[in-house]
Amino acid sequence: MRRVLVPALLVCGAALVLPRTIWAGVGTAEATASQQGLDPRVLVGVAVILIVAKLGGELFERLEQPAVLGELIGGIITGNLALIGFGGANFLRTNEVVGALAQIGVIILLFEVGLHSNVADMIEVGWSSLAVAIAGVIAPFFLGWAVAAYFLPNASQLTHIFVGAILCATSVGITARVLKDSGQLARREARIILGAAVIDDVLGLLILAVIAGAIKAVQSGASLALLDIAIIAAKSVFFLAGAIVVGHYVVPHLFHRAGRLQGNGVLLALAISFCFLLAWAASRVGLAPIVGAFAAGLVLDEAHFESFRSREELRLEQLLSPVSSLLVPVFFVLMGLRVDLKAFAKPQLLLYAGALALAAIVGKQVCALAVFERQINRTAIGIGMIPRGEVGLILAGIGTTLMLPNGQGINEPVIGPVTFGAVVIMVILTTLIAPPLLKWSLAGGRFPSEEARTNDLRCDVAEEAIERTSY
Amino acid sequence: MRRVLVPALLVCGAALVLPRTIWAGVGTAEATASQQGLDPRVLVGVAVILIVAKLGGELFERLEQPAVLGELIGGIITGNLALIGFGGANFLRTNEVVGALAQIGVIILLFEVGLHSNVADMIEVGWSSLAVAIAGVIAPFFLGWAVAAYFLPNASQLTHIFVGAILCATSVGITARVLKDSGQLARREARIILGAAVIDDVLGLLILAVIAGAIKAVQSGASLALLDIAIIAAKSVFFLAGAIVVGHYVVPHLFHRAGRLQGNGVLLALAISFCFLLAWAASRVGLAPIVGAFAAGLVLDEAHFESFRSREELRLEQLLSPVSSLLVPVFFVLMGLRVDLKAFAKPQLLLYAGALALAAIVGKQVCALAVFERQINRTAIGIGMIPRGEVGLILAGIGTTLMLPNGQGINEPVIGPVTFGAVVIMVILTTLIAPPLLKWSLAGGRFPSEEARTNDLRCDVAEEAIERTSY
Repeated sequence: MRRVLVPALLVCGAALVLPRTIWAGVGTAEATASQQGLDPRVLVGVAVILIVAKLGGELFERLEQPAVLGELIGGIITGNLALIGFGGANFLRTNEVVGALAQIGVIILLFEVGLHSNVADMIEVGWSSLAVAIAGVIAPFFLGWAVAAYFLPNASQLTHIFVGAILCATSVGITARVLKDSGQLARREARIILGAAVIDDVLGLLILAVIAGAIKAVQSGASLALLDIAIIAAKSVFFLAGAIVVGHYVVPHLFHRAGRLQGNGVLLALAISFCFLLAWAASRVGLAPIVGAFAAGLVLDEAHFESFRSREELRLEQLLSPVSSLLVPVFFVLMGLRVDLKAFAKPQLLLYAGALALAAIVGKQVCALAVFERQINRTAIGIGMIPRGEVGLILAGIGTTLMLPNGQGINEPVIGPVTFGAVVIMVILTTLIAPPLLKWSLAGGRFPSEEARTNDLRCDVAEEAIERTSY
Repeated sequence: MRRVLVPALLVCGAALVLPRTIWAGVGTAEATASQQGLDPRVLVGVAVILIVAKLGGELFERLEQPAVLGELIGGIITGNLALIGFGGANFLRTNEVVGALAQIGVIILLFEVGLHSNVADMIEVGWSSLAVAIAGVIAPFFLGWAVAAYFLPNASQLTHIFVGAILCATSVGITARVLKDSGQLARREARIILGAAVIDDVLGLLILAVIAGAIKAVQSGASLALLDIAIIAAKSVFFLAGAIVVGHYVVPHLFHRAGRLQGNGVLLALAISFCFLLAWAASRVGLAPIVGAFAAGLVLDEAHFESFRSREELRLEQLLSPVSSLLVPVFFVLMGLRVDLKAFAKPQLLLYAGALALAAIVGKQVCALAVFERQINRTAIGIGMIPRGEVGLILAGIGTTLMLPNGQGINEPVIGPVTFGAVVIMVILTTLIAPPLLKWSLAGGRFPSEEARTNDLRCDVAEEAIERTSY
């Protein structure tokens, strides 16, 4: 109990522990900002974000929950201290530099996700995963659309569709962690779930590309035909496929040559440059930068770095890990910071968040129907697909930056503050509910023999997926 | 020859190698910037900066020159491609996010410098180093002042003083690298030079604090009495001393407790938070944030992280290294990017840069007079103090952001574009000239026996200083 209470007290009082004078000072530091080049408030802001992230993550890991939940909830608490008179953290919500650091964090996160997936693995998990993934995308998509249409009748239809898209992507990291902790990674159910979750990520990114394209078309006043949507979808698939094919032939040569460079940090710098260039290229063809970052990770493989192996002591993932452990939490804490709890004073909005979470949970149960193999614990597969995480939040974050003209011709964000808050609550609820349900469901099924579990080479794939949770 | 030519061609054509369409695209990408939250140009900009940094660094290391020179010159070339019709990189000079990344890079660099120095070492190097350091600060300070006063007669006296301050700080990293490469690290001369260079860093930061305080006082219209200057100086010394004393008692407890946290990346996140908080605190009392970052590094010591040692596989410096290898070059390339070669079309300005470099070189020769020990190669000490690097550039960068009212009452930066360019050229010249001169001077002196060299424990201090050059 004490192990939990101590960090709990720490995280609740995180901002209070910092001397009041610091927060008071933050408000008045603006005067010196322009002189120093860098607004010093950014420094204290990033420091507070990192402390909140690590204390919150610690608390939730001790409660046997994913660290990412602690970062989100820590952010929500810090961001809503204004309710008890502490407005010092408010500037973080809109500060350009902190926002850029968070965006770079997400790009690096998706790059890491891509590095841990590779095309061969995705083909190997086979048709079962594909069927589960597609079923698990279609049902939540239409349920989410329906919930948004019911609760936001005045919003644009594109907003409803966007909410549907947010419900699609499964968080592979959280499920993988639960499966590992209960020693079930080698089960066929586990492999199907993890494969489907990776495919979900890709499908979610494709849906995002289509919707973002549609929104831009509407923005520029053009009407949107089915053909346009097909073109956008084709462009996304073409970009991903093109990056993979070109990468397959070009990247090994490129990194082999670069391996001759003897300077320090060349491997990491070139990998990050490659990721940023593809992220930028994605944005040039109208896709989200994260699609490019994911493609960059998919294309790169440790095998390409053989020529660096002799000199650099650490592998690319080890070099990337300190960078992502600093930047990725900035994104999740910032997402929490941007949740305005005041918006949930109306009971109807709490209902909205609840309905969204329910749609997310129920929608994924359709996955169970898509499993055609025998002797499979279908309930476990449906439950394993429940957690939403990174990709859902990233989509919601992008939605808050896309603008649509409303009825009066004024531009409004596609995802307003209410829906954004509801999405964050949905992410928290689905992530909280899945682990205990999954453990219960798996305990009722058959267990693999100890030997089969340790011998199974495919464990490696799942183990890698787990490393992602612990960025 | 081929080993040099290949990267030379690469670095010269770095921006040309990138398809012209990329640069053309960069100019038009602004339209989508606001929608994505992060300006995608920042991504391509950082990617180009990293590629230029690593290619430039590689080229200069093959020429047996410090990598930092390659980063600076690579930046100058990229930034002045506009002269041959390539303006794509121009936005990087003023982009807020790229500027913030560079500033964070400098803060992390000074944090690392602080981590590698510690109070005990600084006391150990003794009075010889202190005398050399003080002599090496006073002479270049007044020479720099005189050069600036001669070439910029219309500028404010504070500008002249600021230029003097820029000439003070020796770059310990570059000298240490030369000493190591010629196997002379264990010589008494080497230890005196390295100790004096560290003290120079601190003295440079103190002078910066005093001048920045004076500029702010003038800005707010107050006249500046000698008493005010004494107060600012006292505040700086008090801040550094206070940080060290408080840190000495508080930090071990803090990090011992934090060692109980079991999450990933806790050590790095807390160390960076501590650094950022002290940098912010420094800016609150009117000092440059880098003073706080240096103090944070001085206070932290590997010994405080014993409780992390069991879990974290890597030491703090190893965790910090990938982060700094990405962010620090952003600063140096950006400094190069900001050099406008067009300003040097007038021969008088080339003279200014040359005179500044001469003042920097001659000024440090006074160090030789400050050595009272016998049987010491005094010339070598004077030459070893020549290279200017990080701190001089950082000071110049800060100078470009400080504003002073000119004769017509209009605010102008204390360090204008011409002086900034001259400083960068001075840094390049002093760093180019020192290594061959030092080798020549040391070859004329006595050599230590092989045994004495390998047994000398103090080598460790110097070795650590060297690691800094290879951030």
